[in-house]
Amino acid sequence: MEKNLERIKDSSLHDLVVQAENAASWIRDGMTLGLSGFTRAGDAKAVPFALVERAKKEKFKVNIFTGASLGSDLDKVLSEAGIINKRLPFQADATMRKNINAGNHLFVDQHLSHTAEMIRNGVLPQIDFAIVEAVSITADGMIIPTTSVGNSLAFVTHAKNIIVEINVDQSEQLEGLHDLYEPAEQGRRLPIPLTKADDRIGTVGMPVDTDKIRGIVFTKYMDSPSPIVPPDHETEEMAQHLISFLREEVHAGRLSNNLAPLQAGIGSVANAVLHGLIDSEFEDLQVYSEVLQDSVFELIDAGKVNFASACSITLSEEMMKQVYGNLEKYRDKLVLRPQEITNHPEIIRRLGLISINTALEFDIYGNVNSTHVSGTKMMNGIGGSGDFARNAKLAIFVTKSIAKGGNISSIVPFVAHVDHTEHDVDVVVTEQGYADLRGLAPRERAQLIINNCVHPMYKAQLRQYFEEALTRGGQTPHVLEKAFSFHTNLAKNGTMLVEEVKSYV
Amino acid sequence: MEKNLERIKDSSLHDLVVQAENAASWIRDGMTLGLSGFTRAGDAKAVPFALVERAKKEKFKVNIFTGASLGSDLDKVLSEAGIINKRLPFQADATMRKNINAGNHLFVDQHLSHTAEMIRNGVLPQIDFAIVEAVSITADGMIIPTTSVGNSLAFVTHAKNIIVEINVDQSEQLEGLHDLYEPAEQGRRLPIPLTKADDRIGTVGMPVDTDKIRGIVFTKYMDSPSPIVPPDHETEEMAQHLISFLREEVHAGRLSNNLAPLQAGIGSVANAVLHGLIDSEFEDLQVYSEVLQDSVFELIDAGKVNFASACSITLSEEMMKQVYGNLEKYRDKLVLRPQEITNHPEIIRRLGLISINTALEFDIYGNVNSTHVSGTKMMNGIGGSGDFARNAKLAIFVTKSIAKGGNISSIVPFVAHVDHTEHDVDVVVTEQGYADLRGLAPRERAQLIINNCVHPMYKAQLRQYFEEALTRGGQTPHVLEKAFSFHTNLAKNGTMLVEEVKSYV
Ligand SMILES: CC(C)(COP(=O)(O)OP(=O)(O)OC[C@H]1O[C@@H](n2cnc3c(N)ncnc32)[C@H](O)[C@@H]1OP(=O)(O)O)[C@@H](O)C(=O)NCCC(=O)NCCS
Ligand SMILES: CC(C)(COP(=O)(O)OP(=O)(O)OC[C@H]1O[C@@H](n2cnc3c(N)ncnc32)[C@H](O)[C@@H]1OP(=O)(O)O)[C@@H](O)C(=O)NCCC(=O)NCCS
Repeated sequence: MEKNLERIKDSSLHDLVVQAENAASWIRDGMTLGLSGFTRAGDAKAVPFALVERAKKEKFKVNIFTGASLGSDLDKVLSEAGIINKRLPFQADATMRKNINAGNHLFVDQHLSHTAEMIRNGVLPQIDFAIVEAVSITADGMIIPTTSVGNSLAFVTHAKNIIVEINVDQSEQLEGLHDLYEPAEQGRRLPIPLTKADDRIGTVGMPVDTDKIRGIVFTKYMDSPSPIVPPDHETEEMAQHLISFLREEVHAGRLSNNLAPLQAGIGSVANAVLHGLIDSEFEDLQVYSEVLQDSVFELIDAGKVNFASACSITLSEEMMKQVYGNLEKYRDKLVLRPQEITNHPEIIRRLGLISINTALEFDIYGNVNSTHVSGTKMMNGIGGSGDFARNAKLAIFVTKSIAKGGNISSIVPFVAHVDHTEHDVDVVVTEQGYADLRGLAPRERAQLIINNCVHPMYKAQLRQYFEEALTRGGQTPHVLEKAFSFHTNLAKNGTMLVEEVKSYV
Repeated sequence: MEKNLERIKDSSLHDLVVQAENAASWIRDGMTLGLSGFTRAGDAKAVPFALVERAKKEKFKVNIFTGASLGSDLDKVLSEAGIINKRLPFQADATMRKNINAGNHLFVDQHLSHTAEMIRNGVLPQIDFAIVEAVSITADGMIIPTTSVGNSLAFVTHAKNIIVEINVDQSEQLEGLHDLYEPAEQGRRLPIPLTKADDRIGTVGMPVDTDKIRGIVFTKYMDSPSPIVPPDHETEEMAQHLISFLREEVHAGRLSNNLAPLQAGIGSVANAVLHGLIDSEFEDLQVYSEVLQDSVFELIDAGKVNFASACSITLSEEMMKQVYGNLEKYRDKLVLRPQEITNHPEIIRRLGLISINTALEFDIYGNVNSTHVSGTKMMNGIGGSGDFARNAKLAIFVTKSIAKGGNISSIVPFVAHVDHTEHDVDVVVTEQGYADLRGLAPRERAQLIINNCVHPMYKAQLRQYFEEALTRGGQTPHVLEKAFSFHTNLAKNGTMLVEEVKSYV
């Protein structure tokens, strides 16, 4: 690997440069690793790959903590190598998912704003090695992250040892993009002084005790691009419904034409819905989010968004070229912060965000399942959706009304796993329409959701359930023995749809 | 009613004094009322009672918004009078509960920190009349609340009209006890400058536009006392388990001997558990809570607690005499704030609270039901438990392992309503023991909960469920068609207990 010692401005650290294999050899069975990386961006790559190589000849297990999901198939190969004991707080890989659901390794699904707090409080095992990707190390010993910040600041601050991966293919122009701020211990902490999406409150790099740096590795791996899922008919309709809702809010005087800072979750649906704002009347928008996907840059290019704050940038190949090839154009419109700050309840509540996240399913009372397919199998994790939904001014969840060609209704009597309770969900949107649940009692919500959001093929079946439930009474009427009947039908018959009700319509 | 005009220092307001019946006559069908009152303390009483009188001769309905539950049987008589359209955000009355569950009026169960925000944002109907109990009105037009603050500040600030009930039996010594602070609009808001439980950040009364005051009523009704439920064998055991857990945290260096500011929920269990700290080694404790029950004053008297912040004081008759008879003794150890501040995520996270709330039931994966008996019937409401649990340093839930003489297991396969998700629950405690769930994956949590917290009579039955679920796999293994079997057994057989499993043990 080509060394570029100019990227290490503190020359007393030059001696620490090693090969990835060397660095990987320091890691022992039972250790806990804190890796940089947040939804495919800015992950440490060389040392984890070398660790996977080592696993071919050696048996060991480690805990892998990150910001969120890793790119470059790292979660896949780490999982396949059989070296993971515990993984947290988020992943989004098909192979890892399979191993988690088979019980082959443990996964802890956490609110993304909570992990750093738990590390600081000593509740999670101490990080033995923080392994973080960097653009450079400054003369005063700060590590400049690359395309994500994630939990890296908490990892390097509280780890016993640090390994830095300097990625020479990441432009030094990234320096200045980041804003690193770590709250003090709880109980000795001052207010976080951020009051606008574009405020800067910290340093441009991660200040570290350089004595803890055990090794520095040079790399050239680029982030893996996101697959492009172009907007389809349904996502366009969802965007239109969302825009209608926001327009109503403006008419009612509850929002101005530049709305409120926007957060949009990961995944193809949220990206497509955000994209839909390009042709809306809203202007001078700001983004205060977790991940910036393609849509945010399209909105910047269209002159709709004038500032975007996040903890990671996750782009398609095409968009990567455009953004990183023209960084000067975007620099003053972007800031990357620790996920603890992007997702902090204090900030989300203060700024009054509009938060748009994707649900797997929701129920007739407005409870949302973001994580567990049929209540048992982990999809990705709750990510930041809970941090945002609980504290946002507007907690919006979007999903297509059906999945798998109609065999699944995304609206069910009772979600088979609850990630966001009825107390936290303001508005739900499908391609059928939206339901504004704010200030409504459960019985009112059920009516509105069934009328506005459910696919026509499932309306009768859900109405029938609700009517039977009403005969039993209660604040939140249910027929408990049938509450999961949609899910058990799916398991038994391959579809949630019941013939009788279908033919009855 | 005896008038005491000295309690209205701004003499330009003396003309506004009216009888309660007069004031009640201004309220029209379809209006929304914002009443002071939080868990039996500081409720407006005279005008609501006059309104109930009016309902004997007239048909009308109103929305009733409060801080939390009302005392003096107000929720009972309002509900019986049939004049409620919608009630929010919390209640705790048996008659009202029955009417809610029968669908006779609507109830919206909200996080107690959210209501004021929704009023400020214009999401809930505007308050037509704020009706608030007061000790006095100052010369500069501030309303001094009595024994609770609740949502009164948001009500008077955003209401069209205000009616003040001056309670002459409440001591003027209460002036100075309160600290009133209202955050600005979201997006234009500064950090809330509170960094310690005993900080004062606002004014001693509620500054109002006196032009909005339509009437002032003099009253003498005292708050209704809490029933005394003395600690029993089980609650003493729970307190001991909680203390053991906290002691371990001190040993591990994660807490110091004065712990962290404590919050304890309403109800007999939480009160008894807090009481248990009297004989512990912990000292110099602080309370940052929602309601102060008897136990907090016992802890103050015992020299264990040196400061307590809350939005309401709810005491037994005995303790009322002691506290209000010796207010000088307690004054500098107490502050009463709006519930938006006592329950604010920003503050709860900043201070790093230890939060202790009572669950109705929890499941083997750590999801908690605080509100719905058998998933459908409203008990009281989520109250502040979600505000605290999500943001506390330690979110602890306590409950007896069985209820109704053993016919109910408070630990079930799947809670029939989710108020607090697995992501938000750190520690669960029953009289059997505690389970520290922090950093554990669902499969690990289930083992620990079944081993440590479940009553012996239900252990085999829950183990059998978990083992069958494991054969199905998943991150969170379940047998969906049996997930609510405990609840359906109870409905069918009057007990959750299954004979086969019992005899199998
Ligand atoms: C919910 C989530 C999985 C949706 O992802 P997405 O890419 O936007 O949505 P899609 O509609 O393409 O659905 C993804 C898959 O789930 C399936 N699916 C959708 N609804 C389903 C349901 N109710 N039951 C089972 N499967 C469902 C889809 O069919 C699709 O399957 P495929 O991959 O085999 O084609 C994703 O947004 C997520 O993980 N969210 C949780 C984390 C989060 O919200 N973070 C926010 C802050 S970043
Ligand atoms: C959960 C809550 C109802 C418990 O109240 P409590 O007085 O401490 O507890 P108890 O054990 O006496 O239980 C109250 C009743 O529920 C019953 N109960 C307890 N567990 C039950 C269960 N799993 N299923 C059905 N009923 C149950 C009890 O038998 C008792 O019934 P009774 O009144 O007929 O005797 C109460 O704490 C609450 O409303 N909590 C939600 C709000 C909150 O947590 N606020 C916190 C911030 S203030």
